[in-house]
Amino acid sequence: MPPRASIAHSLLDTISALISLLALDRLPRTGWLLAGIDDPETIAGHIVSTAHVVLALGPNVDPALDVDRALALAVVHDSPEAWTGDLPKQVSEGLPPGAKQALEARVADTLLSGLSTTARERHAEYAAGETRESRFVRVCDKLQLGVQLLAYERAGLGDLDDFVETLRSLDCSEFTPAVAFQTNLLAALEECE
Amino acid sequence: MPPRASIAHSLLDTISALISLLALDRLPRTGWLLAGIDDPETIAGHIVSTAHVVLALGPNVDPALDVDRALALAVVHDSPEAWTGDLPKQVSEGLPPGAKQALEARVADTLLSGLSTTARERHAEYAAGETRESRFVRVCDKLQLGVQLLAYERAGLGDLDDFVETLRSLDCSEFTPAVAFQTNLLAALEECE
Amino acid sequence: MPPRASIAHSLLDTISALISLLALDRLPRTGWLLAGIDDPETIAGHIVSTAHVVLALGPNVDPALDVDRALALAVVHDSPEAWTGDLPKQVSEGLPPGAKQALEARVADTLLSGLSTTARERHAEYAAGETRESRFVRVCDKLQLGVQLLAYERAGLGDLDDFVETLRSLDCSEFTPAVAFQTNLLAALEECE
Amino acid sequence: MPPRASIAHSLLDTISALISLLALDRLPRTGWLLAGIDDPETIAGHIVSTAHVVLALGPNVDPALDVDRALALAVVHDSPEAWTGDLPKQVSEGLPPGAKQALEARVADTLLSGLSTTARERHAEYAAGETRESRFVRVCDKLQLGVQLLAYERAGLGDLDDFVETLRSLDCSEFTPAVAFQTNLLAALEECE
Amino acid sequence: MPPRASIAHSLLDTISALISLLALDRLPRTGWLLAGIDDPETIAGHIVSTAHVVLALGPNVDPALDVDRALALAVVHDSPEAWTGDLPKQVSEGLPPGAKQALEARVADTLLSGLSTTARERHAEYAAGETRESRFVRVCDKLQLGVQLLAYERAGLGDLDDFVETLRSLDCSEFTPAVAFQTNLLAALEECE
Amino acid sequence: MPPRASIAHSLLDTISALISLLALDRLPRTGWLLAGIDDPETIAGHIVSTAHVVLALGPNVDPALDVDRALALAVVHDSPEAWTGDLPKQVSEGLPPGAKQALEARVADTLLSGLSTTARERHAEYAAGETRESRFVRVCDKLQLGVQLLAYERAGLGDLDDFVETLRSLDCSEFTPAVAFQTNLLAALEECE
Repeated sequence: MPPRASIAHSLLDTISALISLLALDRLPRTGWLLAGIDDPETIAGHIVSTAHVVLALGPNVDPALDVDRALALAVVHDSPEAWTGDLPKQVSEGLPPGAKQALEARVADTLLSGLSTTARERHAEYAAGETRESRFVRVCDKLQLGVQLLAYERAGLGDLDDFVETLRSLDCSEFTPAVAFQTNLLAALEECE
Repeated sequence: MPPRASIAHSLLDTISALISLLALDRLPRTGWLLAGIDDPETIAGHIVSTAHVVLALGPNVDPALDVDRALALAVVHDSPEAWTGDLPKQVSEGLPPGAKQALEARVADTLLSGLSTTARERHAEYAAGETRESRFVRVCDKLQLGVQLLAYERAGLGDLDDFVETLRSLDCSEFTPAVAFQTNLLAALEECE
Repeated sequence: MPPRASIAHSLLDTISALISLLALDRLPRTGWLLAGIDDPETIAGHIVSTAHVVLALGPNVDPALDVDRALALAVVHDSPEAWTGDLPKQVSEGLPPGAKQALEARVADTLLSGLSTTARERHAEYAAGETRESRFVRVCDKLQLGVQLLAYERAGLGDLDDFVETLRSLDCSEFTPAVAFQTNLLAALEECE
Repeated sequence: MPPRASIAHSLLDTISALISLLALDRLPRTGWLLAGIDDPETIAGHIVSTAHVVLALGPNVDPALDVDRALALAVVHDSPEAWTGDLPKQVSEGLPPGAKQALEARVADTLLSGLSTTARERHAEYAAGETRESRFVRVCDKLQLGVQLLAYERAGLGDLDDFVETLRSLDCSEFTPAVAFQTNLLAALEECE
Repeated sequence: MPPRASIAHSLLDTISALISLLALDRLPRTGWLLAGIDDPETIAGHIVSTAHVVLALGPNVDPALDVDRALALAVVHDSPEAWTGDLPKQVSEGLPPGAKQALEARVADTLLSGLSTTARERHAEYAAGETRESRFVRVCDKLQLGVQLLAYERAGLGDLDDFVETLRSLDCSEFTPAVAFQTNLLAALEECE
Repeated sequence: MPPRASIAHSLLDTISALISLLALDRLPRTGWLLAGIDDPETIAGHIVSTAHVVLALGPNVDPALDVDRALALAVVHDSPEAWTGDLPKQVSEGLPPGAKQALEARVADTLLSGLSTTARERHAEYAAGETRESRFVRVCDKLQLGVQLLAYERAGLGDLDDFVETLRSLDCSEFTPAVAFQTNLLAALEECE
């Protein structure tokens, strides 16, 4: 009897991909770095925290989301950055349309396919943004920026007005609990000033 | 009309819990530290990597697992360590039976309930170890130790024989793809010597 | 002729304990971490600074203290944290009465007895808090929190009001020079606002 | 009635000295750095570990030492390095005779006198090396190098043969327990090869 | 009277560029990271060390080079990485031909033009590789990899065979002193095994 | 036919010097450290940034400077600190007149002569301060302090008034573009308050 899923990769590829992905624990979120936070959140830290935001808001979304699948999307959403690093908007805004997505897809083809076709599919679903779960995780990705921003502002790390603006201009209207969360984050940020 | 899930916590509690959980990105995995790895993997890095192991092996388990729910368990499995830190076996083995679990449950009651009842339930499922998904994630938690171990051994960071023993003595027999993965990790480790 | 002190441990145990204790140089003081200081003081840094506070205030205490023995207490007061880490008050306040002390005593039995019976005795004296020297070092332990707090506040690292409250509510009345020092720290902290 | 010890310094000087001394927690031991250990032991970590070596060996020295005063010497022995950093032998060996000691004495006059005359006296006793306690702490300072060396060798961090030579050529003959400890460290180091 | 060079940028742009470029001190060289060196050399460290290699070999090149201009090329050669990070070969080899160069040129247009037209010109000269000085700095950029590699191998940080291969296959034949240096580095690396 | 420049050193000395100089990437700028910036700019980061300031201002100086040679001076100006560390003004102001310069010259004789006579000459030119290029680089060295200061102030890292004073009292009058830059930095710093 064949295995449940076709194995398009050897375990050596799997091990190699898993070891490459460990770099997520060392690579900085560059937006904070360029704003003067010298030892910022790592990409791994951002992924875990985004998953926590999904867990906080997802169960209250109406109509109900598949929260567990949303978590799977959160887990893989920035995996290609193990190789590309976190390209800041100073770079990504200057790239030709679609270039960053094409780069990430090319990396995902190696790194995530090295794990499993499921891993590759979850990233593709996130990248396409066509399912409600994928759009929800994109919103949570931005709201997580608000969580870390609030932590930095409370710690007195300051020149972060652009990030407040990014959070303020985020359109969460598809997901009611996200709107309430955004409002509360912005209110908490105002208390820091 | 009431919200889909009863909200047992205010958003302030949610924000507070999310900010506490950011500490996972800064806290070291103490087993490596006590073995002389001075700047080891963080707990957040371990969580992300464990989720990647779940993604690598889960789709091939027969009969099929709910891989997405397993990922949810992986995401929360060490969340209480944001407050307790990663207690090394030198400490946990000396505690009265059940003491570490009781401590984690108490912390989970605050930290994870601060996110959502779903988050609290996923951690409780992991802690109980009664579902196949929870037992699978426990195996992946240990196999991730093998992934990081291999990375350290390849990098020449050496006095880690106890960890090889831990990996060798791991019983993965409930999940066939985990057995194959364990075998391959051990073979790759032998090549490092 | 027998050695001066009975040697209840081999030198291998001593070497092993000394190597475990090196972890103090890597482990963070978690209270600062949870308050948003991302790369905080280590436990070793706290121990050295507490000893410096003892050296600053101890010689002026009336009636005279045994300052050198107080320094010995300061040197060992947090040694068990090499294994337990620095459990933050979010955890220790939730433990059953005496549980944290019992945990530390159990670790001290291995780690400090591994050094010498003198080391174990000095920690026991600190933990019991029955001698004036031990109570003085406990006060200095808290005043050191004030020193680091002042350094953080001057550096603009900010959301630390709870720590100011902790310092303000500290009862130093048994040791006159400590009261004066506390007053000056609080005055210096007010200048930061 | 006058205070027990004349206060030659204001509390502001004390606070200022204590804050300067916090730098010990951030400054690297440069010998390791120049040998390729990129994130080495800090000076604070070295001070705590030296005090632990004193606690391990001091109680067994015959005739008996004042172990507590030896600990006081250990606590202050490298305090001036908060300002000078840890000058490596590449520099100190090239300085005119006595120049390093003169530099440290000058810094101690400000930094340690800022704490108390007792602190200044303890450093002067260590620097003079005329008492048995001070000579014992000097031996422990070198033996601590052996402890950290063993930890690095066990962790596979390797190009440290010069340090093994330094440890081997150390004359501990005044203190019998130190000789036994040195022998055991060297034996443990040989096992790493 | 007009300034010597037309100022195509305000001083605000200059300050902004200089602050962005500070990120070079925080960003890792990703090749080392993916090879398991968890806290590797920064890009700033690489730039300084490359300049040192230029200073070591440049004066001996025959016919004579303009060593100072070569240093200017070394100083700017990786400046765009303040925004892009150090894209590892896993990424750059998968990009369309010229894509990485185009990205760097686009970033240099903002970041280096923000300093001066001279800065922009020096980077363009390096990128074009048409002058002897620019080709020499390219060789030194690779030889610096050999210097850091030797430091890692001596420190026992090991799984770096690919890097040895990169160094071995480097064609330095245009610059005689570089050939000798390459030979010596490879000989020193062999001694580490 | 003899080589262009007499080679007073073997390549082994060169390699040894290059590896020692890698420490610049790890050593902190101590002024920031003592002002409470716990993970400050490295010396390598400062060197690169000083070179960038030279590139920003040098081309506009009238009469024209040799900007490339000025960059060479910037590259070597703090090289001896690989061994001495960055001695803070608390130490250097207490040294006998000329002592710091003599120390640096002695280290430069080994470290920089290990690279090439050109490297040694460039440092000697900087240290003497007799050429316009060397005086310009000294000014840029101080202006770089202003750049990093502005980055810290914008990031909310605050108790840095002494550094603002240092910048304000800097005499840049020999180099007109430096005066304009200083003025703009001070204006930007005022906006942070």
